[in-house]
Parts: sequence; C-alpha cells; structure tokens
Amino acid sequence: MTELERQGAAARAAAGVLAMAGTVEKNRALEEIARALENGVEEILAANARDMEAARASGTRAALLDRLALSAQRIGGMAAGVREVAALADPVGESDWTQTRPNGLVISRRRVPLGVVGIIYEARPNVTVDAAALCLKSGNACILRGGREAIHSNRALAAVMSQALESAGLPGGCVSLVQDPSRESAQQLMHLDRYLDVLIPRGGPGLIRAVAKEASVPVIRTGEGVCHVYVDKDADPAMAAGIVYNAKCSRPSVCNAAECLVLHRDIAEAFFQKALPLLDQNHVELRCDKPALALLGDRGVPAQESDWDAEYGDYILAVRTVDSLAGAIDFINAHGTGHSECIVTDSYSAAQTFLSQVDAAAVYVNASTRFTDGGEFGLGAEIGISTQKLHARGPMGLQALTSWKYLVYGSGQVR
Amino acid sequence: MTELERQGAAARAAAGVLAMAGTVEKNRALEEIARALENGVEEILAANARDMEAARASGTRAALLDRLALSAQRIGGMAAGVREVAALADPVGESDWTQTRPNGLVISRRRVPLGVVGIIYEARPNVTVDAAALCLKSGNACILRGGREAIHSNRALAAVMSQALESAGLPGGCVSLVQDPSRESAQQLMHLDRYLDVLIPRGGPGLIRAVAKEASVPVIRTGEGVCHVYVDKDADPAMAAGIVYNAKCSRPSVCNAAECLVLHRDIAEAFFQKALPLLDQNHVELRCDKPALALLGDRGVPAQESDWDAEYGDYILAVRTVDSLAGAIDFINAHGTGHSECIVTDSYSAAQTFLSQVDAAAVYVNASTRFTDGGEFGLGAEIGISTQKLHARGPMGLQALTSWKYLVYGSGQVR
Repeated sequence: MTELERQGAAARAAAGVLAMAGTVEKNRALEEIARALENGVEEILAANARDMEAARASGTRAALLDRLALSAQRIGGMAAGVREVAALADPVGESDWTQTRPNGLVISRRRVPLGVVGIIYEARPNVTVDAAALCLKSGNACILRGGREAIHSNRALAAVMSQALESAGLPGGCVSLVQDPSRESAQQLMHLDRYLDVLIPRGGPGLIRAVAKEASVPVIRTGEGVCHVYVDKDADPAMAAGIVYNAKCSRPSVCNAAECLVLHRDIAEAFFQKALPLLDQNHVELRCDKPALALLGDRGVPAQESDWDAEYGDYILAVRTVDSLAGAIDFINAHGTGHSECIVTDSYSAAQTFLSQVDAAAVYVNASTRFTDGGEFGLGAEIGISTQKLHARGPMGLQALTSWKYLVYGSGQVR
Repeated sequence: MTELERQGAAARAAAGVLAMAGTVEKNRALEEIARALENGVEEILAANARDMEAARASGTRAALLDRLALSAQRIGGMAAGVREVAALADPVGESDWTQTRPNGLVISRRRVPLGVVGIIYEARPNVTVDAAALCLKSGNACILRGGREAIHSNRALAAVMSQALESAGLPGGCVSLVQDPSRESAQQLMHLDRYLDVLIPRGGPGLIRAVAKEASVPVIRTGEGVCHVYVDKDADPAMAAGIVYNAKCSRPSVCNAAECLVLHRDIAEAFFQKALPLLDQNHVELRCDKPALALLGDRGVPAQESDWDAEYGDYILAVRTVDSLAGAIDFINAHGTGHSECIVTDSYSAAQTFLSQVDAAAVYVNASTRFTDGGEFGLGAEIGISTQKLHARGPMGLQALTSWKYLVYGSGQVR
C-alpha cells in the first residue's frame, strides 16, 4: 500500500462515519473549524511566510504572490466562509420522490453523499478551506492536493481542520491533504479509483484539461471559460458597451470573464463609439478580424486563428464580426467552452433563439457573464462551475456533491 | 476524417435539430418508427435469418441464439415499446427552479438533452430500437454500436428507423449505427470525445468494465450486479426463503438477480429448512463458506475466494455466514457492485441501519432485488441501471438522458 492508498482507505472509512452524521454534528464541526482557524492565525501565518519566502526567492510574479499571501484578515474571511457553509441547508437525507407501487412496495429516493471527493488545485490556499467545508457539509470526505507553492500553508490549514474535526467527534481523516505536492502524487490521485468517487480539478485551463485527459477516476470539469458577448444588430449600443466592459474588465482573471466579442456588422460602428472610451480605461487590447480591423484601424491588432479559442485571463478581447444571429450562434457553439454566453439585444425572437440554441451552462440576455457564480445565482457557495453536461452543469453547490439511493420498503414482495 | 468521425459530425448536427424539436414532433417520429417496424417485418426477419444462420454455423450456444432471434411477435413487441416511450412525459424544457435575484435578474434552470449518446451493446437486437426510442424522446441523437452477431438485424432496424425519422421530418442521422462491428470501431467510439457527450455500455460485466477502463468519453456504468440478500436473525424464515428463491431463480441472467446469500448464523438452519425445497426445484448450486457447509453437508460445495465477487448469471448462489448485522453490512459494502441489496428482517432498527449504511443504488427491506427496474419503480422505460453515483444512480429513465442549462434574463445588469 502506498502512502496515498493509506490516505484513501482512511478517507473512505471517514466517509462512512460522515455519511451517517446529522446536520447538527456537521455544523458543530464546521463551527469548530471556523474557531480553530481564528485561533490558529499565528501558526498559519508562520507557515504562509515560509511559502511566501520560497515564492519570492524563485521570482514568482506579483499576481501569483498575491494569490498565495494570507493575512489575519484573509484567514478571518476563510472562517466566515466556513460559517456561511454551515448556514446552508443540508441536502443529505432530502427526498424529492416517493411512490407507493401497486404491489405495495414503497420506494423513496434519498439524497446521499458521493463518498470521497478529490480536489486538485493550484496556488490559492483558501481553496483548502472552502473545498473542505463544502465537502464536509455535504457529508463527503475529501482528499486535497494543493500546489507545491502553498504546501506549508496548506499543511497548517489541514492540520488545524483535522484537529477541529476530532474535537467535534468526527474522524480527522474526513479532511486530508496530500503531503507530497509532487507531479507523481497528482498522477497517483488521478488513478485512485478504489477510494475516490470523483475528482474535481480547480485552476487554470491547462490543469483542468490535463486532469480530464489523464484521470481514470471520474472527473468533473470546471471553470474553463472562453465566454462570448454577442452584440446583436438590435442591441442598445450603450447597454452593450456597459456589458462588454463589465464582462471583460471587472475581473479579467476569472473564468466567467468574457474573452471574445461577437459583433453584428450593422451595429459595429455605433457599438465602438460607446465601448471604446470604456475599454480604453483599461487599455484593452482588441484582437480583430478584418471587418473589425477596418473599423478600428490602429486601435486594433489582427487576430490569429488561435485567438478564437483563447482564454486570456487578461485585458485582451478577441473581436469577431458576423452577418447574422445564426452566424453568431454557430461561432459561439464552435469556439465556446460551454461556460457562459451572452446576447445583447432588444429583439424578443433573437433572444429566444439565442437562449435555446446556444449550448452552455449559462446563457444570458442583456446581462454580464460575470454573474455565473453560486452566490450570484442564489445557490450558495460553490465548489466550481461545471462546464460539462453530466452530473452537474454551471455553479456546483452542495447538491452537486451528492448522489441518491432508492430505498425500497417491502413486506415480502417477489416478482 | 474517418467514417466514424463523419458519423459523429452528422449525429452532432442532427442533435442540434432534435434539441429544438417539440414533443409533438418527437412523438410523431416515434409513431412513424413503430409503424415502420410493423411494416418492415419481412425485411427485418430476412436480415435476422442471416445473423441466425451465421451464429448457428459458428456453434453459438442456445441461450445466445435465443437472444439474437427475432420473430414477428418480437418485432411487434419492439413497436409497442416505442409507443410506450412516446407516451412518457417529455423531460426536455421542464424547469424545476427559477429565482428572481435582488438585482432583478431572472434565472431559470431548463432541462436540455445531453446531445449525442453512444451505446455499445452485445447480442440483443432489441437494444437497437429501445435505446434509439429513449434517446429520441429525450432529444438526443444516438450512435449505436451493436455486436457483430447481430449486424444484419441491426442494420435493417437502423435503416427502418432512419427512413421513418426522415418521413417524420427529422434528420435520419438522429439514429445511426456503426456499420462495421469490429473491435477497432468500438475503440474509436470510446475516444470520439469531440462528438459524443456520453457513452453507455450495455451488456455483460466484461464489456462494461472494458469500456469504463478504456473510454475517454464520459461513461455511465450500468448493470453490474453482484447483488446480495441478507437474512437477518430476526427474519421470518419463510419470507426469507421466498425472497431468496425469487431473487436467484426468477431470471438468473439479469443484473438484479441475487448472486450471494448472506446469512446470520442464528437463523441459518431454520432458513435452509424453508429455502432448500425451493432452491432444489432449480438445482441451485450453493457455494458455501465453512459454517454453511457444516450445515448443508453434501448439498453445498466449498466456495473459493473468487465466489465472493462473482456475477454468475446462472443457478449458482454463494453463501456467506455472518455473526452480526454489522458483519453483513461490511461484507456487502466490500463485495457488492452498488446495484441492489436486500435485508430480510422484522427488526425495525436492523432495517433502518441496513438502509442507511449499505451503499448501493437500491436498498431493500423484505422484497426481492428483482424489482430494480425502471418499469417496476414507476420511472418508465430505462436505458440501463446505473451502478455509479455521478449523474444518475439506479434505473435510468428519460431524465437521466438530460442535463440542464441556466437561462438568465437581464435588462443591462453588470457586476
């Protein structure tokens, strides 16, 4: 048995206990975790300082350093997040379907935890706490495999959580961290079929594609976001400019940010009059097809073929001109990642057609793609935004971490 | 582009049309298919005769020949099955969740088809029609890859269905058959990620495990059934005998048949007194652990270690003795396939513990495992019985062939 298999077996055993725990017990454990995070600020910050020092020494760029950095305030934010999860309704044990069959069998479908959830993620140590809290509340044990850069922070956070679980009377193995953040440990985790029920990668598109390709454990793909805003000929140019600006610039690094503007040629000029002053504020680079370039001149740069599939995560926007709604829909279905897609229009029929025919987790009329988020949708905290169609699609709240089973109550029936 | 990729592209295009089709259109196409099957009896039987001839020539055993054989009556049964699917409620377009957010966004979750469903299956040609009807009703195009033995029958059935689809005004590519039933074509289908949204293997456990292991397309595992009946010390021996007999002998080849009897030692003797006269009717072979063998003497044979994980599909039953309910639950969770598990008991607390702690799609108290079936559960016709926890668990009706998307109606909202 490898170290990871031992960890898997412990997680499986812990999952058996956790699946039987009631909401009160789970909430008590979450409260213990929140308090332990608050009480452990010093040791967590000391561990984080080691990660920060190593990161600075290896010349990590500022944006990444910022993701890695913890502070008393950020740890307080984690604790608050844990309490928010405790306040969410517990999906486990819910039943939305019961039938009494003609032969007297009573059949009821009951929500149950998935079992053991694996998470592979990158630099942000807050994922360690967020993911653990969501798994715990939904009755799942989790095995967390964070990035090498955050290993000391993650170890400190995981230790604090395991201790808190134990003082709340639950097995510490409900939350466990892969101690060795090597490439090999990630590979092993992807093939830990015997102990893992699902694997959720969280991070950049490179990580997600690699995990989906390699893993034999079932994977839920999350957060690949090549999102489009289509400005229809019947759009209000000012509204369209506001939405495009927000979708691109309010937080370009996240998956629900827009990467490509699809523009009906009849509105292109009017749109740019309103949009350029906004996009100029952030010096957004516009990578344009020929018709757009003809309009924009020096303000644009020519797009390459690869721009139509790029997730920039930056102040860059691809611009594609189309002749029709159908052309826009075809382009989006060919190049989107099934995350969030928007039409800006005042045409009722264009809106309905777009909503029906665009194949994505979230399809918008006249609103920024930036709203695709568990909190914004009213679904509570999320473990990721699924871009696949199986099991869960869109923001994945607690329910996405459950399955169900059929309970059949008989009195001797045979068939 | 390979032939299969061309087929995939055609299915993807057909799926786009089918996703937009209303229930009336889909039902009309199903009725056309039912009628075309009835009108095509002669050509279908002629094709089936070729398969039967080849199967006889290659010395196929009787049970398999029976699965392969069609008759006017069986074709009539297929047509009736298609009409039953037409009569089921259409899940596509349903919405079970709508919210108006504080910022005025209206967010609604709408059921949509998965897209293109691949089915890999073995000898029975009726799967060709059953699977196509369920996919069609749920708005999915399908690519069917049946076994080599049934290739002429399947070609005839697929041709009849494609023509019927076209006369109903839908693309013939909504249903397509892989024309070459080679091992290579199955391999290719398992990696047709670009065009397939999901792959469902239907057949024996060997097929299902091979597909789950090899495929890069997401797979739903169905129909692996190492099912147990646990006879608790507080069982009524006569009821237990009736249930065990039914679960083993009413149709031993199917996945919801019991393969293993788990017996509390305190009831073993009383149970066998009632059960042996029943099991003897079918000469059921009893592969026993030592305590059971001590009771049964010559009536039993010693079990091998491999018997605890065997799906016999035959008149063979493994017999395992336990000292406690907890021992039974541990054994079942270690050796079951997560399909259907039963306790026979009159103890309320034993029943509740078993229902909670056994990890399977269907958990029974005092009824035969043979009821795990879409029709018996009141869920309508099924495409398979999922033994996994992601996406669908238990009998998979039309809803299991759908996903959803979030529709967001705005009026210029930005974040």
